[in-house]
Amino acid sequence: MNLENKISKIGRNMKSSIIREILKFASDEEAISFGGGVPDPETFPRKELAEIAKEIIEKEYHYTLQYSTTEGDPLLKHQILKLLERMYGITGLDEDNIVFTVGSQQALDLIGKIFLDDESYCVLDDPAYLGAINAFKQYLAHFIVVPLEDDGMNIDVLEKKLSELDRRGKIKRVKFIYVVSNFHNPAGVTTSLEKRKALVEIAERYDLFIIEDDPYGALRYEGETIDPIFKIGGPERVVMLNTFSKVLAPGLRIGMVVGDKEFIKRIVQAKQSADLCSPAITHRLAARYLERYDLFEHLKPTIEIYRRKRKVMLKALEENFSDIPGAKWVKSEGGLFVWLSLPEGFDTWEMFEYAKKKKIFYVPGRVFKVYDEPSPSMRLSFCLPPDEKIVEGVKRLREVVLEYGRTKKIF
Amino acid sequence: MNLENKISKIGRNMKSSIIREILKFASDEEAISFGGGVPDPETFPRKELAEIAKEIIEKEYHYTLQYSTTEGDPLLKHQILKLLERMYGITGLDEDNIVFTVGSQQALDLIGKIFLDDESYCVLDDPAYLGAINAFKQYLAHFIVVPLEDDGMNIDVLEKKLSELDRRGKIKRVKFIYVVSNFHNPAGVTTSLEKRKALVEIAERYDLFIIEDDPYGALRYEGETIDPIFKIGGPERVVMLNTFSKVLAPGLRIGMVVGDKEFIKRIVQAKQSADLCSPAITHRLAARYLERYDLFEHLKPTIEIYRRKRKVMLKALEENFSDIPGAKWVKSEGGLFVWLSLPEGFDTWEMFEYAKKKKIFYVPGRVFKVYDEPSPSMRLSFCLPPDEKIVEGVKRLREVVLEYGRTKKIF
Repeated sequence: MNLENKISKIGRNMKSSIIREILKFASDEEAISFGGGVPDPETFPRKELAEIAKEIIEKEYHYTLQYSTTEGDPLLKHQILKLLERMYGITGLDEDNIVFTVGSQQALDLIGKIFLDDESYCVLDDPAYLGAINAFKQYLAHFIVVPLEDDGMNIDVLEKKLSELDRRGKIKRVKFIYVVSNFHNPAGVTTSLEKRKALVEIAERYDLFIIEDDPYGALRYEGETIDPIFKIGGPERVVMLNTFSKVLAPGLRIGMVVGDKEFIKRIVQAKQSADLCSPAITHRLAARYLERYDLFEHLKPTIEIYRRKRKVMLKALEENFSDIPGAKWVKSEGGLFVWLSLPEGFDTWEMFEYAKKKKIFYVPGRVFKVYDEPSPSMRLSFCLPPDEKIVEGVKRLREVVLEYGRTKKIF
Repeated sequence: MNLENKISKIGRNMKSSIIREILKFASDEEAISFGGGVPDPETFPRKELAEIAKEIIEKEYHYTLQYSTTEGDPLLKHQILKLLERMYGITGLDEDNIVFTVGSQQALDLIGKIFLDDESYCVLDDPAYLGAINAFKQYLAHFIVVPLEDDGMNIDVLEKKLSELDRRGKIKRVKFIYVVSNFHNPAGVTTSLEKRKALVEIAERYDLFIIEDDPYGALRYEGETIDPIFKIGGPERVVMLNTFSKVLAPGLRIGMVVGDKEFIKRIVQAKQSADLCSPAITHRLAARYLERYDLFEHLKPTIEIYRRKRKVMLKALEENFSDIPGAKWVKSEGGLFVWLSLPEGFDTWEMFEYAKKKKIFYVPGRVFKVYDEPSPSMRLSFCLPPDEKIVEGVKRLREVVLEYGRTKKIF
């Protein structure tokens, strides 16, 4: 059978994760990988989750082993409402403001499906989160790409591009602005309060909504928490995506959308056709865990580990890259990534062949470009390798950069 | 914010599950519901699953609590390969022929996404499985609707419609034929071996593929197992969907696609953007259960329960509906449903108001129509109510039918 000639318009627009392809080399014992953004399994509360799992399957089997509702576990929603209040002072919501998804990825996919088509536009930053690019691209949408600065999206460029579309009578086709507000993946930057307010103001002016994706917000190592865009703009204008993947365990695959009730209804409707409902076991497991344990207390040692590893990586970069002209990196206040940029002329995608030989792995910046373009930057994740490997890895990276730079006659 | 004017072309085509709406009345204590197709929670092996859950979270936390691969657990694939051989004598496959989805519903959604668009056609039967109608409709596809007979799809009508499209030069736009081969939901019928062969022959002639959805195959109460279409046509021509929802526990949300490796790769690619990966806990839970226990032994008492309930329902129908002229029902050899058809003039959707008053619930046939049309049929599920409620429920149903029939002057 010829599959190729049966593929739909959307199907033709899907692409495989390049990160997957890249990181399959990293399983070598001598390799050091700054590639994946996966948390350290030792930070998972396995004993507690194991006990609870046994209990909820044995005693709550009517719920945990049966089909559940598309919206997800009401007990877990109750816990989320408490967490949102405690973490960000967000109040005034109830369970109809929340729907759970299979990871945040499903939320991105469903939002793309509901709002984007070949006549739609949406705003993404440059660089942008790969999962969002992939989810939105499928639906044939057009992108308004706005450069990311150290304090968030370049607001002037955003305004210019939107007013241009307004002049051309196309502003109604622009559906939303997608923002990773805290410790951006991949760029590590946090959107300033000023820019958060500016984004809300722009969204109101042009009647757009904002998707605030906040998987890393609880992983802050220094500085003060900034009000979420969701809190500034309210559920009428902003939907917030969150996940337990970085603070409890990715294996649960629990993402969530918090937003206006009408918006949530739409997501529920889309999720019905997408997978009917999530596994109730995972929801109840998280709900009972949050009832019995303090997530923020649990996170303290995790945060200590990541804070230390981040420091080790930043110090190693200082020692190995300060003398490389034009190299710079973002000192993120939280999250899992450092974004390292090399001078013009570098193509970290092409350089990856050099890195493979030295068994050091990173994610080339090209992967985070909305349109496939060369990039002089790369994402370095410090969450998995032990301290000494981080130091050794940055040294190897220096060698790779010097070799590539000399070969390409950049230095 | 005005949401309505932001919805995409696909978003405008989504609809909420009518079954959900209908069955919310059924929670009344005195109500008897033949509505949902959900298995009896007492048939779930909760003790065994509880023990395994504790163990795999405690000891295999590197796998179970972490991100996993999009394809799913290789240990579970190994078990599936053994089950397919044991149940249907299917051999010659390896793990690249399988991908797990969040329930079969995700498989239907991803197949729709990959293959259907506003220029595509696919073949559905009448009545058809609601989850498939919803999944495929979203993607704006056109439908070739073929009446279902007691031994499967009407092959003559199918051939006529396909050759008509062929004459009009549109045959290349027809992507697949969707079939629930065993104990059809809602109609209860099983496609005969002869028709299975005919379907493969037609699929080959017109270069289509067949989606064989087989959630109920293991729930056979009488008669002999028939070779799956997948076995007759091979993975080059047929993909098989299956699920643990009806034989282990729906709460695991484990569906699967078994097919040609290139086909599976496409599903994996689509699943990456849809939700990255399923929760590893649920896969490993099923894998370890299948390693340690015999699924078919576990199913024996379940099958006994359903066989008895089905008999009770068929007997009650015999006693209460034999004298109603034109009433007929399908004596399915397995599965969870009896399809009851009333004489012309009946509209079971409209009659539902009468049923509500007598507190007896069923799913009106209209729900299973590809295009929203009245239907004189209804789906009766015998899996949840105890025997005496089944008898009482059928009696109430008779009263409803007599009252509606008299009011509408059908009798």
